[in-house]
Amino acid sequence: MLVIMDPRATEAEIARVKERIKELGYQAHPIPGANQLAIGVTGNQGTEDRIYLEGLPGVVQVIRVTKPYKLASRDTKPENTIVDVRGVKFGAGNIVMIAGPCAVESREQTLRIAQLVADRGALMLRGGAYKPRTSPYAFQGMGEQGLEILAEAREKTGLPVVTEVVDPADAPLVAQYADMLQIGTRNMQNFTLLKEVGKLGLPVLMKRGMSANLDETLMSIEYLMSHGSKAVVVCERGVRTFGNHSRNTLDVSIIPAFKRVSHLPIIVDPSHAGGHRYSVVPLALAGVGAGADGLLVDVHDDPDHALVDGPQALLPDDFKELMAVLGRIAEALGKSLGSPPAVDSERS
Amino acid sequence: MLVIMDPRATEAEIARVKERIKELGYQAHPIPGANQLAIGVTGNQGTEDRIYLEGLPGVVQVIRVTKPYKLASRDTKPENTIVDVRGVKFGAGNIVMIAGPCAVESREQTLRIAQLVADRGALMLRGGAYKPRTSPYAFQGMGEQGLEILAEAREKTGLPVVTEVVDPADAPLVAQYADMLQIGTRNMQNFTLLKEVGKLGLPVLMKRGMSANLDETLMSIEYLMSHGSKAVVVCERGVRTFGNHSRNTLDVSIIPAFKRVSHLPIIVDPSHAGGHRYSVVPLALAGVGAGADGLLVDVHDDPDHALVDGPQALLPDDFKELMAVLGRIAEALGKSLGSPPAVDSERS
Amino acid sequence: MLVIMDPRATEAEIARVKERIKELGYQAHPIPGANQLAIGVTGNQGTEDRIYLEGLPGVVQVIRVTKPYKLASRDTKPENTIVDVRGVKFGAGNIVMIAGPCAVESREQTLRIAQLVADRGALMLRGGAYKPRTSPYAFQGMGEQGLEILAEAREKTGLPVVTEVVDPADAPLVAQYADMLQIGTRNMQNFTLLKEVGKLGLPVLMKRGMSANLDETLMSIEYLMSHGSKAVVVCERGVRTFGNHSRNTLDVSIIPAFKRVSHLPIIVDPSHAGGHRYSVVPLALAGVGAGADGLLVDVHDDPDHALVDGPQALLPDDFKELMAVLGRIAEALGKSLGSPPAVDSERS
Amino acid sequence: MLVIMDPRATEAEIARVKERIKELGYQAHPIPGANQLAIGVTGNQGTEDRIYLEGLPGVVQVIRVTKPYKLASRDTKPENTIVDVRGVKFGAGNIVMIAGPCAVESREQTLRIAQLVADRGALMLRGGAYKPRTSPYAFQGMGEQGLEILAEAREKTGLPVVTEVVDPADAPLVAQYADMLQIGTRNMQNFTLLKEVGKLGLPVLMKRGMSANLDETLMSIEYLMSHGSKAVVVCERGVRTFGNHSRNTLDVSIIPAFKRVSHLPIIVDPSHAGGHRYSVVPLALAGVGAGADGLLVDVHDDPDHALVDGPQALLPDDFKELMAVLGRIAEALGKSLGSPPAVDSERS
Repeated sequence: MLVIMDPRATEAEIARVKERIKELGYQAHPIPGANQLAIGVTGNQGTEDRIYLEGLPGVVQVIRVTKPYKLASRDTKPENTIVDVRGVKFGAGNIVMIAGPCAVESREQTLRIAQLVADRGALMLRGGAYKPRTSPYAFQGMGEQGLEILAEAREKTGLPVVTEVVDPADAPLVAQYADMLQIGTRNMQNFTLLKEVGKLGLPVLMKRGMSANLDETLMSIEYLMSHGSKAVVVCERGVRTFGNHSRNTLDVSIIPAFKRVSHLPIIVDPSHAGGHRYSVVPLALAGVGAGADGLLVDVHDDPDHALVDGPQALLPDDFKELMAVLGRIAEALGKSLGSPPAVDSERS
Repeated sequence: MLVIMDPRATEAEIARVKERIKELGYQAHPIPGANQLAIGVTGNQGTEDRIYLEGLPGVVQVIRVTKPYKLASRDTKPENTIVDVRGVKFGAGNIVMIAGPCAVESREQTLRIAQLVADRGALMLRGGAYKPRTSPYAFQGMGEQGLEILAEAREKTGLPVVTEVVDPADAPLVAQYADMLQIGTRNMQNFTLLKEVGKLGLPVLMKRGMSANLDETLMSIEYLMSHGSKAVVVCERGVRTFGNHSRNTLDVSIIPAFKRVSHLPIIVDPSHAGGHRYSVVPLALAGVGAGADGLLVDVHDDPDHALVDGPQALLPDDFKELMAVLGRIAEALGKSLGSPPAVDSERS
Repeated sequence: MLVIMDPRATEAEIARVKERIKELGYQAHPIPGANQLAIGVTGNQGTEDRIYLEGLPGVVQVIRVTKPYKLASRDTKPENTIVDVRGVKFGAGNIVMIAGPCAVESREQTLRIAQLVADRGALMLRGGAYKPRTSPYAFQGMGEQGLEILAEAREKTGLPVVTEVVDPADAPLVAQYADMLQIGTRNMQNFTLLKEVGKLGLPVLMKRGMSANLDETLMSIEYLMSHGSKAVVVCERGVRTFGNHSRNTLDVSIIPAFKRVSHLPIIVDPSHAGGHRYSVVPLALAGVGAGADGLLVDVHDDPDHALVDGPQALLPDDFKELMAVLGRIAEALGKSLGSPPAVDSERS
Repeated sequence: MLVIMDPRATEAEIARVKERIKELGYQAHPIPGANQLAIGVTGNQGTEDRIYLEGLPGVVQVIRVTKPYKLASRDTKPENTIVDVRGVKFGAGNIVMIAGPCAVESREQTLRIAQLVADRGALMLRGGAYKPRTSPYAFQGMGEQGLEILAEAREKTGLPVVTEVVDPADAPLVAQYADMLQIGTRNMQNFTLLKEVGKLGLPVLMKRGMSANLDETLMSIEYLMSHGSKAVVVCERGVRTFGNHSRNTLDVSIIPAFKRVSHLPIIVDPSHAGGHRYSVVPLALAGVGAGADGLLVDVHDDPDHALVDGPQALLPDDFKELMAVLGRIAEALGKSLGSPPAVDSERS
């Protein structure tokens, strides 16, 4: 921690800050500059102690050096973590395609689309049984019936299933059906939900919040991991900016930044980022170019009648084409679209 | 709804769009322009139908005219709603001061600060028993014990209490102690929580999400009201922008914009917006200048040792000074700091 | 300056950083932490040296302590600067109203509106002769003819005139007519223009850029002052955010933050911030509540036919009402709407 | 244009709006809805007429249908424009690499780096002789001497040169040396500069403004083209958001969005977007994945001593590796890194 003092800070103010640092059990290291004093603080644990110094008279700024996250940090675990979801590996030098409808709308629709994406090379199935919708009047998902349909789709296609949990009370139920639990973007800082999902120990797909910065994203992973999750995959799905040509602004720069500080895999959702069919493939390839370990894509065979987010769903032929170009790109990057065999990977 | 067609849309594409509009049960009204066709759509109910048209070939944009919220809208209820919390009125041409510690840290601290803000003119007491913290390692609040302390503080001071609910399962418990339930900024789109809190029927203080636009804010109120809330007060507490001179960017422009479209009261939290003591009073006065119906302010008598957000808490003397200038400003605006007598107000 | 090293930095990397610090002529002060090393750097001058260290292997971050601006800084000049424009003082504990049409459209329109705002208490006249317009097809201003009209309006009303310069080559011409030169928001980082305007030595009204942070704003003032300006007033006019309920997001939090680090006055433009007539008065009062030293307001007596920004112009009666409430608010804040007599003020 | 009326608009207000539409020479087409009236407006020319209706009583919103740009629009020219800079083609299904130092620092440095990027496959040379710097105390470029050095580098390597113009008065001088003129991000709305550069008729590389939306970007191109430019290439270089893990947030979503509405090429600058060496390659590949027609990359062989932006410069070996992976990716996308022969392309 570094405390920057005001150039006009009095001797008494400086003394009080040093005293407070000692009172907290740390050491103060004054660094006199041309205009003002900085005080290095050692011995602190990188948690919230900063707030005890920030409001003191004469203090201009308190800069945290030690990062407040541990379990998610590459400092704690330097090598990459490979997340294994029923044999599908994330972070093993491959690109995992997760595809399916945005929402489970009916048994027929879900089984049909699941088969379709399986046939075209997807490794996992996505589909929402509980849908967090901006409007209380919009379709809220099929609930447990939807979970049953997803489980049936898994039986038929062999694809492991990822689906969203929106209510902490439902988490154990969803865990009975799903192979991976999804935390939605609006719930990234729903700490109650993170704790409950963390306790279940299943692999988690956590979407980055709409305006979450990198530290906050890591702190939410820290909630999951400190409560029991061993395997977390983060998903960048676009952030909120002034831009209005896209539903959200896909922030590809978080991919190298995240990989630099964390050992966990990160994937991209180009469908919710772009919001328009025509931008899904470009954004998918952008994500992969930036180093994403996988993709989460909406596919629908009748998007005009989809109950949720039809305009952004890829048609079956679009999806086929995406998988083809993705295969060539993966090769160019020395990666593959498949999942390597189970040896050496860390089971969740 | 208005559908904007591409200038290069074919006859067949235009025909398909018109057909789809009829299929949805609406009427299509073509408006030919110099370069391109627009199609007015009447008969729709302002919900999510837009998505069924947006992805059709040849469609450039679908513009929603009818707003998707109803209960929160001034179109439904043109006159202002006065929210009454145990006799304290919001939206009655007055400015309501809610003050107290950010978190309930102990019985002594809370009773002491409650008395202090009551003596200086606050009308309601704030204080968190459940704290949503970015870090899992930070103080998470005293829980039910904190609620008991708040209830005791109410007995001693006569100030009604507002406190946050973070877990849907806890909502009924919190409702036994609190006079008004708070939805935190990170939970504004935690729809499960909104539904549970809505069902309880108590007045709600809903903080605007960190990057929520006006429509989303109104849709979250709509969740509360469609599930049972009759009285909702919104709180602007700063939004997330590129700015780094302030913890958040207080968006005063939402106050006139909100009042234009909704009949509900709106207040401002200058403490969480600014994040620094020196900016709390300027931001409080800015909020009142913009038309806020009240303020939510952190006050602490030993902020150096506060467990949460000490650097932004006003000291007792700062608070006294704020109340003094606020009294003069209220008069300049033809308002008061008190709460008018109960006659004619709508009980929650 | 503080250099934060990677916890995994090697001895050789650390040695190279220390050597580079010495090579730059500074001193290195290692501060060993629990996980990683920080190196304090003293002796540097707060300019751009940071970049010479940032890219070195093993360096995580370089934190600048000394601010890069000097002339604009309160560290250099602790007391407030009072800017005097032909006897109108900014920063003297008063609130200066600058009002007029957005653009000079004709002699009659400008003289009429100038008289109207003078009669209602404005202290200065605004009006654009050169208009920076987003579209090349939109009205670009009357040019020198517009400057002549403004000068005539000054003769008739006694109000000093502020008007925008958009072309460095025009700066000397504009300076012949105007009392204060305006730098528009899109030109805040047009450094060529800043240099030319700075050389002229006239008082400058510099609008904050649409997405300029506080440091960048101060650095642009530094361009003006290091080239000759002695008196600069900054104008907050709204920044660009995700918000869509307002033309821009008025950032009132920059007012206390700016005053904390700079000795110069700051005013608010509620017209361009809000973009809608109904929000101008609330935003004006918000700015004043936050501590603004003045206001810049569009007024038009026939806004339906205004060539530029009619929807945000106040009508004469709105303006009269604003001045009335402003007078009461100023009194509540212990300020005035007038300009104190010339004694003791610093002439530009 | 579509005018949305308030549900509570009076008959008189509606009549006044219709009258005003006729007065402007357009036709009004009322579209009655369940709650409120919308009025379609035909006959208008998509310029600024909106402002004449927006402030009228009873009007909630005016929605522009016709886009305000023409020359930059795909509606005016449906097929892609190929921009030719001395034989280097942009937009011909290839990926053009422009590389070089951020700034021309000396003859030796520039010639050395120019040769180095030429040897590794760059098609054009970048380098700033005039540098727009945030600080007035930072290195501002070598000026005309820098231009001479760039011209010499072109002679030696055969690479056409792109360099920035910051002062409208310098534009003709820069045009004597450069093959393509660059408009910097801070000058995207410096309309005086756009007009002067436009008049010269040379190909232009226009960087998107730090917070420019798509329409504003197109309107700035419109300034260039309506004053004489025939060939404009846009460059996405990151926008300003709340994100702090990257110097700017590279907005890859603008690439498909831009290509949908404009016929012009668009490239990406991963160096200024990321600001850190480790993110340049991932962001470069992300841009190419999203469909960029080229890249603009900082390369330096001694970045620790670079006068400008050293931390983001690629080292020669990094650059070689980037070119290698780029070649494989281009092939995967059916593109090339070379420039096709001159036949059929549109000369600027």
